[in-house]
Amino acid sequence: MKLAANDPSLKSWVHVPKGSDFPIQNLPFGIFKTKYLSAVAGVAIGNHVLDLVYLHEHGYLDGLGLPPGIFNQKYLNDFLALGRRKGREVRERVSELLQHNNHELNAAAREIALVPMSEVQLLLPLRIPNYTDFYSSEEHATNVGSMFRDPKNALLPNWKHLPVGYHGRASSIVVSGTPIHRPKGQVKPPDAELPVYCPSRKLDFELEVAFATCTKTTLGTSLSARDAEENIFGLMLFNDWSARDIQQWEYVPLGPFLGKNFGSTLSPWIVTLDALEPFRTAGPEQFPHVLPYLSVEGNHHFDIALEVLLQAKGEPAVSVCRSNFKYLYWNMAQQLAHHTVNGCNIEVGDVYASGTISGPSPGSFGSLLELTWNGQRPLHVNGHQRTFLEDHDSVIMRGHAEKDGVRIGFGDCTGTILPAS
Amino acid sequence: MKLAANDPSLKSWVHVPKGSDFPIQNLPFGIFKTKYLSAVAGVAIGNHVLDLVYLHEHGYLDGLGLPPGIFNQKYLNDFLALGRRKGREVRERVSELLQHNNHELNAAAREIALVPMSEVQLLLPLRIPNYTDFYSSEEHATNVGSMFRDPKNALLPNWKHLPVGYHGRASSIVVSGTPIHRPKGQVKPPDAELPVYCPSRKLDFELEVAFATCTKTTLGTSLSARDAEENIFGLMLFNDWSARDIQQWEYVPLGPFLGKNFGSTLSPWIVTLDALEPFRTAGPEQFPHVLPYLSVEGNHHFDIALEVLLQAKGEPAVSVCRSNFKYLYWNMAQQLAHHTVNGCNIEVGDVYASGTISGPSPGSFGSLLELTWNGQRPLHVNGHQRTFLEDHDSVIMRGHAEKDGVRIGFGDCTGTILPAS
Repeated sequence: MKLAANDPSLKSWVHVPKGSDFPIQNLPFGIFKTKYLSAVAGVAIGNHVLDLVYLHEHGYLDGLGLPPGIFNQKYLNDFLALGRRKGREVRERVSELLQHNNHELNAAAREIALVPMSEVQLLLPLRIPNYTDFYSSEEHATNVGSMFRDPKNALLPNWKHLPVGYHGRASSIVVSGTPIHRPKGQVKPPDAELPVYCPSRKLDFELEVAFATCTKTTLGTSLSARDAEENIFGLMLFNDWSARDIQQWEYVPLGPFLGKNFGSTLSPWIVTLDALEPFRTAGPEQFPHVLPYLSVEGNHHFDIALEVLLQAKGEPAVSVCRSNFKYLYWNMAQQLAHHTVNGCNIEVGDVYASGTISGPSPGSFGSLLELTWNGQRPLHVNGHQRTFLEDHDSVIMRGHAEKDGVRIGFGDCTGTILPAS
Repeated sequence: MKLAANDPSLKSWVHVPKGSDFPIQNLPFGIFKTKYLSAVAGVAIGNHVLDLVYLHEHGYLDGLGLPPGIFNQKYLNDFLALGRRKGREVRERVSELLQHNNHELNAAAREIALVPMSEVQLLLPLRIPNYTDFYSSEEHATNVGSMFRDPKNALLPNWKHLPVGYHGRASSIVVSGTPIHRPKGQVKPPDAELPVYCPSRKLDFELEVAFATCTKTTLGTSLSARDAEENIFGLMLFNDWSARDIQQWEYVPLGPFLGKNFGSTLSPWIVTLDALEPFRTAGPEQFPHVLPYLSVEGNHHFDIALEVLLQAKGEPAVSVCRSNFKYLYWNMAQQLAHHTVNGCNIEVGDVYASGTISGPSPGSFGSLLELTWNGQRPLHVNGHQRTFLEDHDSVIMRGHAEKDGVRIGFGDCTGTILPAS
């Protein structure tokens, strides 16, 4: 599939600063509000947000068959529910309107429809009916298995046969910029006989990428790996904050619970799979061979550079991890095919996160647990030592794909730790 | 708290057959539709459903400060969001209108407002934003631990310190009567080197009771065990269908996933905690002592007799399990306090299930896994042997509390297994 909107030679009449995540080739969708506008849908372009309600109400999207009010909503769910094809048509049309030689939007219209990023508040783009977290990085699973089980048998027997995943808490997913309270809970110190109740002392981030679905399927039906991607609208960055000490005590035998559900942070812009089309790449070879329902042809990984920065209060942010979305062992098509192989139904706006994305080198590990090897090897951040997160620390995740001078980015996924309440 | 609606001497002008789950002392809320009505809210009374939209629109609920259209909705969420106190006021008023000496509803109004159960289709009463499943029966956890781990250390070290739970899939919760497809998935036979893809051969039910919340809390805040119940609107029966073979292969280290999320069945009527007030009882003694945030005074268990019947196609249903909600080790107040102790927020319409409710005797085990001891001791059902569920088997769950001649029941929670699709 070749989309005009992806043409690297395209330029916009909107000034796009060098290094911006949002050139005309990206055009991700989000929800924003301003002093004057309540929550509405928009598209990011350079340092601006293009107001989709304005475009729709003034006839610039005529002919696309969009329902009235589709962009005048708190969430993008109803827009996503129109499907990937409709999303593609809207993105192509928005691209056309923004191209440097297009004058359909006159000076007055441009003045109203384009809102400076500095004047908007970005909101959670989706009402999230279901959230699943996978565990699809071999390096991450190996690191964790080595630390807590057996380095010689770090991966459990099922790991290379299916994309391990679990259900997470949808209610506590917040948009980038929302502060996170340090969770309190039960912890069992190694030398104690009984658990104690205290604020987590091993608060961590997890670098992940999440996809959002745009289809509602019927219970009892499955999506094939081949068709899965047509049900994925786009991607966001995802910080799966984790309280390692709470998790370690609670997680047997039914998995993570309070160690995770105190908050997860999503970046505000849904970068379409269409915009990422040029960045497809092969994933790692899968051996042993997967069962036929997990088998895919072609490239289903995406080359997206990821970075995590840590920022202590009042100090500059320091890069602590550089990873890549392509390092994952299991791709999104396989994840979605596996999730539905038993007839589990998906809904519009569901969020499916990758699991921590660690790469092969220590500098590419996607969590402090791995970067500091469970606190044994502290990081040095502006002269301070860090094992796990301290109060008032901020974590900033970034991601972008780049090729032929075009950079498709996600914007920041950030959160600051507040003291336990 | 003493509610007039709970008075055992109350009688209704509606005929309530002996043994009915729905006397005037119950009055559970649900959503129904008929040939003439799309989804609306109603209350069960005997073999009838009382149409709340009719009552509301014709002024019978005046003075309660109910928003317009509150009952004319597909789900009860907006009604629940008014809180337990408002639910209590509506239930008291409906009780008043139904009392044998009350003539506010004249013959014509009664004819319209009362719909025979045989003419309604009961729908899922809630839009479920989040679903959590606990693991709160000591007998169940001990049985499972004995079977799959070590009979001498059947309970894991955390089990008596916290109510173990995990997040489940909200999208696949269906209302009683909805057929369930046998799930397909990966299974690893004990003697095989590699997993195979096939329909589950160990399909099971799990007898559970679920509560629904009627509050939206803010991320970062907690509910105390003392206040937790005021956030619980009522209870339903819950069948947490489980594919044991799929679950066994997939569940390490992150818990159950495809072994559960192919479907869960909820009974259609929300029986209010208020209606169950007379059935409070003490739970088992908890030792070791729980941490202060889990400590509660008074009785927070409920004496509700539970039963599971198994019905092969074309044959009579046979009772295979009799258990009781009071057997649980952890009560609902503790579950909700634990769930929010880390700041996790709850939403209106969330469903929190108990986990399988097994009692002390083999006949009270709440799953076929336990009743047949993982298939080693088949049940005899109408002369057939049953280890796990076969295609076209129906599972019928029932529950009721009874005292002073008053029976507060839930109605059936049923599902029939369809062959793998």
